[in-house]
Amino acid sequence: MPPALDFRVTHVGGHARRGEMMTAHGAVQTPAFIPVGTQGAVKAVTMRDLQGLGTEIILANTYHLYLRPGDSRIARLGGLHRFTGWDRPLLTDSGGYQVFSLAARRRVTDEGVWFRSHLDGSSHLLTPEKVVDIQAQLGSDIAMVLDECIAHPAGHADARAAMDRTVRWARRARERFQCVMDSKPAADRPLLSTPGQAQFGIVQGSVYPDLREISASETMDIGFDGYAIGGLSVGEPIALMYEIVERTAARLPADRPRYLMGTGTPADLVECVARGIDLFDCVLPTRHARNGQLFTRHGRLNIRNAEYAEDSRPPDEACLCYTCRHFSRAYLRHLFHAGEITGATLNTLHNLHFYLDTMRRIRDGIVFGTLETLKLEYQQNFPTQAQDP
Amino acid sequence: MPPALDFRVTHVGGHARRGEMMTAHGAVQTPAFIPVGTQGAVKAVTMRDLQGLGTEIILANTYHLYLRPGDSRIARLGGLHRFTGWDRPLLTDSGGYQVFSLAARRRVTDEGVWFRSHLDGSSHLLTPEKVVDIQAQLGSDIAMVLDECIAHPAGHADARAAMDRTVRWARRARERFQCVMDSKPAADRPLLSTPGQAQFGIVQGSVYPDLREISASETMDIGFDGYAIGGLSVGEPIALMYEIVERTAARLPADRPRYLMGTGTPADLVECVARGIDLFDCVLPTRHARNGQLFTRHGRLNIRNAEYAEDSRPPDEACLCYTCRHFSRAYLRHLFHAGEITGATLNTLHNLHFYLDTMRRIRDGIVFGTLETLKLEYQQNFPTQAQDP
Repeated sequence: MPPALDFRVTHVGGHARRGEMMTAHGAVQTPAFIPVGTQGAVKAVTMRDLQGLGTEIILANTYHLYLRPGDSRIARLGGLHRFTGWDRPLLTDSGGYQVFSLAARRRVTDEGVWFRSHLDGSSHLLTPEKVVDIQAQLGSDIAMVLDECIAHPAGHADARAAMDRTVRWARRARERFQCVMDSKPAADRPLLSTPGQAQFGIVQGSVYPDLREISASETMDIGFDGYAIGGLSVGEPIALMYEIVERTAARLPADRPRYLMGTGTPADLVECVARGIDLFDCVLPTRHARNGQLFTRHGRLNIRNAEYAEDSRPPDEACLCYTCRHFSRAYLRHLFHAGEITGATLNTLHNLHFYLDTMRRIRDGIVFGTLETLKLEYQQNFPTQAQDP
Repeated sequence: MPPALDFRVTHVGGHARRGEMMTAHGAVQTPAFIPVGTQGAVKAVTMRDLQGLGTEIILANTYHLYLRPGDSRIARLGGLHRFTGWDRPLLTDSGGYQVFSLAARRRVTDEGVWFRSHLDGSSHLLTPEKVVDIQAQLGSDIAMVLDECIAHPAGHADARAAMDRTVRWARRARERFQCVMDSKPAADRPLLSTPGQAQFGIVQGSVYPDLREISASETMDIGFDGYAIGGLSVGEPIALMYEIVERTAARLPADRPRYLMGTGTPADLVECVARGIDLFDCVLPTRHARNGQLFTRHGRLNIRNAEYAEDSRPPDEACLCYTCRHFSRAYLRHLFHAGEITGATLNTLHNLHFYLDTMRRIRDGIVFGTLETLKLEYQQNFPTQAQDP
């Protein structure tokens, strides 16, 4: 199967790569950060806000959209792009992470995962094939395979079993994906909203380098348009995460994008780009915004604090986002304590700007050979102990 | 005292007036609707959203801002315009309505109103003078006097007593206002952020035409920059409200703006402009938006309803707002049920656009003599029985 996705690396600096990924809905400059729009909206902002921030790609959650409003409904409404009004690249996760987070509410067999909906308790089975079909109906530009995510810490045997199952599932998912892509839309087959949809495999294996190596190798044997590293940022020590990222990225094909799922802090972005990662997604900037935690060039700032009550400075004096150009810490603190939705919006605009600006600086850093300097800056401003939410 | 506010009526049609009100922060085309920004933010939208909608003036609540973050704090931060980032006209109410809504938590004497804060139970006294000082510290363009708002229904004697007290308070408020305006800022006097601040009196008298007449006459004798009609839209029959508005507006000076406080539905706007009103404020468009109630040219639309689950049309097909140009009823319904903040934002943008567009149509209606046609349209689309939230 020829790659559905054109990916061009234009500059390399150490393991870091500067490139461009061309999807069915346009280009993404990499390394890129993907804001999370769980239910078809990035929380507290509008699509025009995201466009204004220069966002090139967003993520939506297959699990949530499958349950509500339903992938068939979205397909009948013209697919996820049309439904959400987002006409740029769109990635959908597999729903695996959400299902495995349900713990007591799910049961895994080789067939797939049985789980109970967090909305109404109804029973559902997600199989590798079904997850492909759902994402075909959503019509995202990049679809992820169903993987088995195990908790940290996991013993080697359990990690191996989950990794092996993830590979078996990946094979079934790839086969199904090819069938769907080859078929024409029909009443009994999923409606494919985005003909140029790409599919990414996911490397698992917990914190065990040998398992990560096997997983990478077998997933590459199947052959995907891109490769994700899953099962990290789940509580393991940060140095161990960086090590696994570095070793795993090094084994993935140089001509395909590498996506580190669910990560991370601003420092993680710089560190993991330096280890060969091209794509990131994380709820941190948006969730922290709603909790009053702002990312700045001087580290994290808790806007709730009394010390900002009469502080007329913007959150970050060097920042050019809408929030920093117009509003003071005192005002944002007031909005937070007054419970004003507008505060969540302004904080989200700032944090997303910070993340996207970090990626711009990273891309420049690769081109101009200054990524190491940037790494030191971020290590200093976002020390490890402050990284956990 | 010469008027602090230039008001020019450019067209008259029956009792309706088309004009322009010039404040210290710019012009307002009248008749105008004033979106409510209770705590220094219009709920769920940003200041740039409001600018994009063509909003010319917003309202902030003296009661809320006095309690949190405090008017002295706002003054130290440069006044309400600078604090909120809103650089256009700004009106502050007197806080009277909020205090009287506290019922058991307040006690009225001739001196003023004692009340307990809804935030922390602390005791406060608002006097006519103090309310002037607070608004001077806030630095709004238009300040309202403290009035006694009584509940509906009220007997004639009670309504008379409250109306008489409102007049006595208005006299004290005007005197204090002149002192503040004449004085230079000093350590022991309130900091005046807006030198060109105007002050409006408030006509009370419940549903009794004789009391309204006395109240109007005595308030005019004191002499204000504009006149508000308070104590309506509090549960009285709509026909009675319209009658009181018509009779009261007719007694107010032709060369000063007339402001109907806390009203109303889209139909109320057209009806009351036709009876001589120039300014309105109301929480209806913003509050209804957050409850999923959308105003359209075909009446109210409850976006929560199952019938919209796969409706790909915008809320209002004739509407040119951002929401209607980009999003379907199905998507907005999904956002509502998913509890997404973005849904509140999109609904608010639409409802505010509808209200502001209604005012544009009203202004055109006065100029081109088509206000009666507009009145019929709004009577039909927003029948009285559907007007109560």
